[in-house]
Amino acid sequence: MSKGLGLFLAVFMMAGCGQVVNQNVKVSGNEPPVSNATRKCLGCHRIVTPGIVAQWERSRHAHITMAEAMKKGKLERLVSATSVPEKFKNVVVGCAECHTQSPDTHADTFEHNGFKVHVVVSPRDCALCHPVEVKEYSQSLKANAYANLMKNPVYHQLAATVVAGKTYVHGKVVLDNPDKKDFETACLKCHGTVVKVKGMIKKNTPFGEMAFPVLEGWPNHGVGRINPDGSKGSCTPCHTRHTFSMEMARKPETCGECHKGPDVPAYKVYMASKHGAIYKSLSGKWNFEGPSWKVGTDFTAPTCAACHMSRIVDENGNVIVERTHRLFDRLPYRLFGIYATPHVKYSQTYRAKNGAGLPLPYNLDGTPAASSVISEEEMNVRMNKMKKVCLSCHAGTLVDGHFNELKDIIDYTNSAEVSATRLLTDVWKSGVEKGLPQGKNPFDEPIEQRWVESWLFYADSIRYGAAMAGQDYVTFASGKWYLGKTLKTMEMMKNLKK
Amino acid sequence: MSKGLGLFLAVFMMAGCGQVVNQNVKVSGNEPPVSNATRKCLGCHRIVTPGIVAQWERSRHAHITMAEAMKKGKLERLVSATSVPEKFKNVVVGCAECHTQSPDTHADTFEHNGFKVHVVVSPRDCALCHPVEVKEYSQSLKANAYANLMKNPVYHQLAATVVAGKTYVHGKVVLDNPDKKDFETACLKCHGTVVKVKGMIKKNTPFGEMAFPVLEGWPNHGVGRINPDGSKGSCTPCHTRHTFSMEMARKPETCGECHKGPDVPAYKVYMASKHGAIYKSLSGKWNFEGPSWKVGTDFTAPTCAACHMSRIVDENGNVIVERTHRLFDRLPYRLFGIYATPHVKYSQTYRAKNGAGLPLPYNLDGTPAASSVISEEEMNVRMNKMKKVCLSCHAGTLVDGHFNELKDIIDYTNSAEVSATRLLTDVWKSGVEKGLPQGKNPFDEPIEQRWVESWLFYADSIRYGAAMAGQDYVTFASGKWYLGKTLKTMEMMKNLKK
Amino acid sequence: MSKGLGLFLAVFMMAGCGQVVNQNVKVSGNEPPVSNATRKCLGCHRIVTPGIVAQWERSRHAHITMAEAMKKGKLERLVSATSVPEKFKNVVVGCAECHTQSPDTHADTFEHNGFKVHVVVSPRDCALCHPVEVKEYSQSLKANAYANLMKNPVYHQLAATVVAGKTYVHGKVVLDNPDKKDFETACLKCHGTVVKVKGMIKKNTPFGEMAFPVLEGWPNHGVGRINPDGSKGSCTPCHTRHTFSMEMARKPETCGECHKGPDVPAYKVYMASKHGAIYKSLSGKWNFEGPSWKVGTDFTAPTCAACHMSRIVDENGNVIVERTHRLFDRLPYRLFGIYATPHVKYSQTYRAKNGAGLPLPYNLDGTPAASSVISEEEMNVRMNKMKKVCLSCHAGTLVDGHFNELKDIIDYTNSAEVSATRLLTDVWKSGVEKGLPQGKNPFDEPIEQRWVESWLFYADSIRYGAAMAGQDYVTFASGKWYLGKTLKTMEMMKNLKK
Repeated sequence: MSKGLGLFLAVFMMAGCGQVVNQNVKVSGNEPPVSNATRKCLGCHRIVTPGIVAQWERSRHAHITMAEAMKKGKLERLVSATSVPEKFKNVVVGCAECHTQSPDTHADTFEHNGFKVHVVVSPRDCALCHPVEVKEYSQSLKANAYANLMKNPVYHQLAATVVAGKTYVHGKVVLDNPDKKDFETACLKCHGTVVKVKGMIKKNTPFGEMAFPVLEGWPNHGVGRINPDGSKGSCTPCHTRHTFSMEMARKPETCGECHKGPDVPAYKVYMASKHGAIYKSLSGKWNFEGPSWKVGTDFTAPTCAACHMSRIVDENGNVIVERTHRLFDRLPYRLFGIYATPHVKYSQTYRAKNGAGLPLPYNLDGTPAASSVISEEEMNVRMNKMKKVCLSCHAGTLVDGHFNELKDIIDYTNSAEVSATRLLTDVWKSGVEKGLPQGKNPFDEPIEQRWVESWLFYADSIRYGAAMAGQDYVTFASGKWYLGKTLKTMEMMKNLKK
Repeated sequence: MSKGLGLFLAVFMMAGCGQVVNQNVKVSGNEPPVSNATRKCLGCHRIVTPGIVAQWERSRHAHITMAEAMKKGKLERLVSATSVPEKFKNVVVGCAECHTQSPDTHADTFEHNGFKVHVVVSPRDCALCHPVEVKEYSQSLKANAYANLMKNPVYHQLAATVVAGKTYVHGKVVLDNPDKKDFETACLKCHGTVVKVKGMIKKNTPFGEMAFPVLEGWPNHGVGRINPDGSKGSCTPCHTRHTFSMEMARKPETCGECHKGPDVPAYKVYMASKHGAIYKSLSGKWNFEGPSWKVGTDFTAPTCAACHMSRIVDENGNVIVERTHRLFDRLPYRLFGIYATPHVKYSQTYRAKNGAGLPLPYNLDGTPAASSVISEEEMNVRMNKMKKVCLSCHAGTLVDGHFNELKDIIDYTNSAEVSATRLLTDVWKSGVEKGLPQGKNPFDEPIEQRWVESWLFYADSIRYGAAMAGQDYVTFASGKWYLGKTLKTMEMMKNLKK
Repeated sequence: MSKGLGLFLAVFMMAGCGQVVNQNVKVSGNEPPVSNATRKCLGCHRIVTPGIVAQWERSRHAHITMAEAMKKGKLERLVSATSVPEKFKNVVVGCAECHTQSPDTHADTFEHNGFKVHVVVSPRDCALCHPVEVKEYSQSLKANAYANLMKNPVYHQLAATVVAGKTYVHGKVVLDNPDKKDFETACLKCHGTVVKVKGMIKKNTPFGEMAFPVLEGWPNHGVGRINPDGSKGSCTPCHTRHTFSMEMARKPETCGECHKGPDVPAYKVYMASKHGAIYKSLSGKWNFEGPSWKVGTDFTAPTCAACHMSRIVDENGNVIVERTHRLFDRLPYRLFGIYATPHVKYSQTYRAKNGAGLPLPYNLDGTPAASSVISEEEMNVRMNKMKKVCLSCHAGTLVDGHFNELKDIIDYTNSAEVSATRLLTDVWKSGVEKGLPQGKNPFDEPIEQRWVESWLFYADSIRYGAAMAGQDYVTFASGKWYLGKTLKTMEMMKNLKK
């Protein structure tokens, strides 16, 4: 198709599309207006990306203006802004409202049919209407997930060991130098990439040739993504574009995209629990949409969101626990790691420092790095918030019993990891395998790999299993059975090396 | 809050709550009455545990009296009692009806606002209305699951090996002495704990300070729980409190809480089968509530309940197979174990005895311990019951073919386990590893752990895969691939030891 | 029951059943007629197999005649025939229409109450109304799945190694000679068996003694089944009898029956992806039934069917991509195998031939066997079809980025497999383990088993993970972690052997 014809067609179709919009969007007397800019986006995108247009049309964003949203009472409201610039007030939240907001701050902004459009909508865009949620989220570990992996030399080395290519040379399997792509296609899918503009590319489209930015680290919807506007984090891993379904954000499958196992088996553990069984059996009849989630009425068992984030209310609207996007607000412990400890003090977890100077909230002997973890007082504050969720259905005796068991299991797994780590340290000391003492990679040899599994897969599973009452994950499935087998296998390997 | 004020508030609020109840419970002319006692429970618990009150309000228990329930015809009836004490007849089944029944028989009964309340509702409580179901269940292996694990010295040693702490001393990984908590937080979550009253504890509540019993082995809803009233078993693992949803009891997710794998992978196998695929795809439109489950109409593929427990009827109400809570009624074989055998004769499986005096229904050479397993005649009776379920959709040729394949697979796995066990016996005989012949733990060394996996994970999976047509579990997923790999790994380890 | 009485009852009941049918089938003025033959089938089968009768009654087949089906417009039509023999035109598609079609061509046809009935309905039967779909399917790899496994000496040897019994003799674990049953109960459950008539058997039925064919390789609904009429393939693995639910065929659970893992983990990967999370969270409100599937309206995330098979249209009915039952139509690559390559050229994949004469589309050094794979041009054709699906929701930049990442991952895994294969070749060369160079089984020794896992489980998972954005399967779950661990374990085993 010649460029001229393409342009002609583009203009022609865009005009036509505009009409199509007028016909197709349900516009009743009560339906709030779509901005002119968004109307133009829809005109073409109804043709080139019909799926997301149809999704958006069914979303909350397409059916309410900020003016109306801000009028709602506290318990009904989903926006936390109390004012927005005039031009956003009386239109629904459409394509243009997000993708053309503050164009100068977005490095991926490009000229597109007369608009300055950016590809990657960032938390800073969402903050226009949802400032409290974005701020809370920015304080979470999740928003810092990129740096928490890549700026922590210990975790970075583990990640590099996992993602690097493996080459067989001179009878040995050696690690290649991992490149950026190796991280981007693996760990950073969840942790978030650094999204950068590499240049522009011209593409043929149904509306003629057009130029689009080429992005590095894209596609990506990791929780700690570094966006082209410099902001950290992404709302879309949980609030999936372009439906922005609250139902989906509250369902454990969404969390399960990253917390799936074997390394962070939260989703599997939940699904094996009584709570998970209730969810799977009965949630077809639950109401996932109310901004204030009514326990026992809207839902009869907690999902991930209920325990960690959602505002829970009783039948009469009394708030049992407030909504938070700072995900550690109800977390006294950090279960993840070689050892479970009181929760790490920093959202930027790489700022932790243990006795040996390593960026970990614990020492290798299993004691917490006291200055890097929260106080007992703060633990109690968080534990009490979490318990409020539990207590909305369970008696105090049961709840206390449950968390006592979690404490026991933490001690159990920490103690087992002291054993595993001592065994490995002996192997390192003997020099048969080289690791931390020799300044060598502690994650790449067979016995080291079993050690990693002992905590990253098994101790973690056991702790999650106890925390969420997913019993099989304490015992057999990635549980004590495998932890025990792994320790004995390490012992066997140690003896083989002699 | 001072004690005096607390008490005052408590009394005040309880009075108030009573009124709230009058307002909130949907009381129409047709709605059956709530007992005065339950009304008082609801008064406060609507505030302190709103979740379970809301669940109960939506349950069948909240909307029918025993008098009405007993009037129903056989196929519509869910209660099996034909008479109950007068005071239970004309009220719905509320908090008090269960939690204050026969207070003197429950060791966990405590004074609570003028009531003698017990925490743990036991099958003996449920038997007031459901005596047939409770009796049948008491005859099942499930009701004896605590003793079947803890009183069987072989299984107890395996369990102890799994749950015990592991300590690294003098270059070796050794087992700690497991304590009660180690069992309670692991195996006994499914098998059931012994729940005992350890004392009383005072707690601050929204209604002032109150005293509550402290329970050992709690929380727990294991199928073989030993309750404070001395009864065995628990109804709540399947009939989840406080909705008591029949839908949930009939859905495989409930069974999957314990039968999940890798040790008893029934749920995973089912989900990978055609039946499971039908269930997952289409069950959103099924009717799970009718007491007599209509094949092809209410449901179009069996769930665990359909094959093992439910009363199945045709469109015209003809009974195809009767309901049972004695779960082995349709089970000719016992698939679980080193070897699959005719089903063990005893509900208390630890009463089995093989030729070597071990409490197992088979000898270590793979032959059944004839006096501990059911007769061929009884096998046929059970098989025919199971086949009736199959035949409601499938032709006899297909059903026979299916069970012939199961028989083949049983022979296959038994034969592979003869090999695995002989290999291990050779290792024991050589004295390199110590096990049964030396009176030592046969489950704790690396080669022994592989042997355990060969039957507990893989032979079992293959058998379940064949029994439920979950094909991937016969072949790759925990199937023949892993069984073969495990046997070869054992052979390799045996040679390393030389 | 005496034979005479049985026959009498049979005749009596069949007459009676006929009446029951007249009463029970919803016959309104608009309801299309059931053939006399089918009416007779239903008479008895409503009693003996009520489940499938009830399912069929709710199926599309029971409510439409071919005459009406053929009248529908292209986008609404589910049948592709433009004419059928007169007797099929004006009746619904019932038991007799399928099970008595062309009786002489079916070796499993038997006399049954005056009808010539065959047990196994084959694609050739379905082709009466669905000729295009059956033809396309016959050209797919799936239809050839039996031969693709059993006639490929390499894959056959791997399969034989997996399914064969294992016997411990003279201190070694050796493979038995696998028999037909070993294949039929394992691999061939998915690949399809050869179904043959072995004879007839008499059975007692509620209608007296009757004779039925005994079938070898039955039950089976593998995709490449060889049917008693000589045809290849089976429609029922996806279009489950007797509901023939389009909803079920479009849901990933159906595909997951075989593509489940660890060997072909497509289902698990999908379920861990954003698409899978959307499906699991929101599909309760989707419309799975329209023959032309409306993106964004009927469904908001692709299922397996959407990407690989379905006709996708936009809101206005514009076709985005056409339906196909030739499943490779949108597949540029073959991801499965030691190495991923351009898609193999042959539906009968055993016809591939590499430089060493092996029936594989790649050489052992990782290069594609050029003459056995599709051209770059054909790859582009297929890729563009697939991308059309993606582009219905995503921008071109994102889609290109995604497939660039897949390409990177293919290179990554191929390169790792070059390493694994070289390592193993060194072991073979050293003669410590015998394999291909010695004409010995390359799949049966411990180090060989790890090599098989490195590609069959891990490289495959990583590729699927990248192809479907199921991130955890690239990294931890069956991903790079396990691939790296397996390579290092192979290195360790190689050194142990020295």
